[in-house]
Amino acid sequence: MHVVVTGAAGMIGRKLTARLVKDGGLNGKPIDKFTLTDVVAAEKPAGFGGKVDIVTGDMAAPGAAEKLIAERPDVIFHLAGVVSGEAEIDFDKGYHVNLDGTRALLEAIRHAEGYHPKFIFTSSIAVYGAPFPHAIPDDFHLTPLTSYGTQKAISELLLADYNRRGFLDGVGIRLPTICVRPGKPNKAASGFFSGIIREPLAGHEAILPVADTVRHTHASPRAAVGFLLHAATLTREQLGPRINLAMPGVCCTVAEQIDSLTRIAGPQVAARIKRQPDELIMRIVSGWSERIDARRAAELGFKAEKNFDEIVKAHIEDELGGKIA
Amino acid sequence: MHVVVTGAAGMIGRKLTARLVKDGGLNGKPIDKFTLTDVVAAEKPAGFGGKVDIVTGDMAAPGAAEKLIAERPDVIFHLAGVVSGEAEIDFDKGYHVNLDGTRALLEAIRHAEGYHPKFIFTSSIAVYGAPFPHAIPDDFHLTPLTSYGTQKAISELLLADYNRRGFLDGVGIRLPTICVRPGKPNKAASGFFSGIIREPLAGHEAILPVADTVRHTHASPRAAVGFLLHAATLTREQLGPRINLAMPGVCCTVAEQIDSLTRIAGPQVAARIKRQPDELIMRIVSGWSERIDARRAAELGFKAEKNFDEIVKAHIEDELGGKIA
Ligand SMILES: NC(=O)c1ccc[n+]([C@@H]2O[C@H](COP(=O)([O-])OP(=O)(O)OC[C@H]3O[C@@H](n4cnc5c(N)ncnc54)[C@H](O)[C@@H]3O)[C@@H](O)[C@H]2O)c1
Ligand SMILES: NC(=O)c1ccc[n+]([C@@H]2O[C@H](COP(=O)([O-])OP(=O)(O)OC[C@H]3O[C@@H](n4cnc5c(N)ncnc54)[C@H](O)[C@@H]3O)[C@@H](O)[C@H]2O)c1
Repeated sequence: MHVVVTGAAGMIGRKLTARLVKDGGLNGKPIDKFTLTDVVAAEKPAGFGGKVDIVTGDMAAPGAAEKLIAERPDVIFHLAGVVSGEAEIDFDKGYHVNLDGTRALLEAIRHAEGYHPKFIFTSSIAVYGAPFPHAIPDDFHLTPLTSYGTQKAISELLLADYNRRGFLDGVGIRLPTICVRPGKPNKAASGFFSGIIREPLAGHEAILPVADTVRHTHASPRAAVGFLLHAATLTREQLGPRINLAMPGVCCTVAEQIDSLTRIAGPQVAARIKRQPDELIMRIVSGWSERIDARRAAELGFKAEKNFDEIVKAHIEDELGGKIA
Repeated sequence: MHVVVTGAAGMIGRKLTARLVKDGGLNGKPIDKFTLTDVVAAEKPAGFGGKVDIVTGDMAAPGAAEKLIAERPDVIFHLAGVVSGEAEIDFDKGYHVNLDGTRALLEAIRHAEGYHPKFIFTSSIAVYGAPFPHAIPDDFHLTPLTSYGTQKAISELLLADYNRRGFLDGVGIRLPTICVRPGKPNKAASGFFSGIIREPLAGHEAILPVADTVRHTHASPRAAVGFLLHAATLTREQLGPRINLAMPGVCCTVAEQIDSLTRIAGPQVAARIKRQPDELIMRIVSGWSERIDARRAAELGFKAEKNFDEIVKAHIEDELGGKIA
């Protein structure tokens, strides 16, 4: 089987590819080829015996999507995207990659006669916009308050129509905030949710810009990869026409996050968190969803961590080789 | 004030233009110019003393949108669209007009520096898809089951993002089925809702392809024009960020429609309805929404008819000069 990953050099793309290599296959079929595409060159995955095509360039550029699917890959994980902050600052770039890139890929598939791949798309809970009910149900409307959320919601609608028409077998996965995000601190407004765990565990200080009472829903990178793999196993019959699904996650407050860190790594590690309120970040975060009642995803067998302790432990295992600084 | 109407040769476009001419202005300001555009040549409205530009052509063609807004019209009523049945049969045409046409117009406005017109868009209840709750609330999700509904939902999302960014003052109006639609019977699956009133009143037979118990929500063409004019009066402050609004209407069964016709025009007129069940139409209609709980629209002052008798009377007054055949 031939698997394409777009955004393959990104955080989730790399972890997904590594997991597929480790599993050796998908849905019981061995993988003999990967096509890994990104604007940044993706790395050749370690330990894979099959063929790997690294395609470096803008997947939204004219002709790029057609090339990606020319060999009729069996499964496409479409992860390439411009993140929230950048899509808000650069209107054209956000629409170019997040909307036109997705549409170009869907169009290339539609025009390839007799071809209908499995297509897994990473959407986001940014498709929702405040004000929210106590918990967001599966049938809550999409009123995004960012261009990124708008682009994800539009991509979901396109995917559902192309799926309904039979051009592909699609699933849209609305990822919650991925925590603990590995790597360097970044400027995303949501960065602190990961920073307050990752940095103290690595021996560094972390800034907490919001109140302890802020509540949010999280899933680990490992859980996110699990969602994408599980999505690839679902049939049209199981999914029905509503193929865009909110994912489960761990809903907790910042105080509960810090409690987990303290329990697992000790108070001297948790003491590396410095409270430094930031009005702007507080305002942005106040518009985000707190609780998501992902009932359909649960029924369909999607699984996240059960509590924030598990999320901290997954990070220590997957990123720190089990060791705390 | 300069008003643009796209889809101006269409049913609602013609009625909207005639009403604006009759009113002489909009929001208390006189109208001195109309730009009326459609693929079919729009007629010059009778009794208008100001300037009229008739622009005939595809508004989604490259450069067309820029030309339409070159003089910076104050208000744009964007009604041009390929209808449901055609968008389902001709995938490319539907996306070209209903999605790319709308986006081209929004993009032209965004690129015109310092310009932010009032922009009223005709969406549709086709943005919803079965299964439905007893009544569809304002915060129900959009899971369209047609390409037309998908294109309308995407246009709504774009409009909301362009509005949020301040490029324009937008409102999206989700019209219910417009009944009684004047003119010749057409092949729309929804055609019979109007046909069973219009044809008997004109002395002709009409086919009823579904059961008497089928329930649906209707508004007259007069009410639809009223919605668009009322939308043009609403401010950003009144609307808030959720600018796409389900409209009110008269919710009734086919039996209740026929009762109204009998009450107003007599049993000999209602006897012109022939029952001829059509499996295909029954199946299509069973996927449509029955009741819409348009609470926000009611709060914002949108008004439809109170009962189906008023809808029949509006048709007799507006289309038949008060006379029944
Ligand atoms: N991480 C999260 O919390 C989260 C939450 C919700 C949704 N998502 C979505 O999941 C997907 C993956 O997320 P991630 O955390 O790995 O993000 P990431 O930024 O690490 O990876 C995205 C990748 O897409 C690539 N890319 C951008 N433009 C491209 C283009 N034009 N052509 C080809 N590649 C391009 C980037 O170079 C990057 O490597 C994204 O679509 C993201 O929007 C992520
Ligand atoms: N009538 C209804 O029941 C109803 C219900 C919901 C939504 N709507 C929407 O309201 C709007 C007006 O509806 P209507 O009943 O007057 O429909 P209509 O079909 O009578 O009018 C639409 C007009 O758009 C024009 N058009 C199509 N493609 C075009 C293009 N590329 N460039 C310029 N013009 C183009 C058509 O020629 C037509 O005159 C449409 O957008 C429709 O989708 C109507």
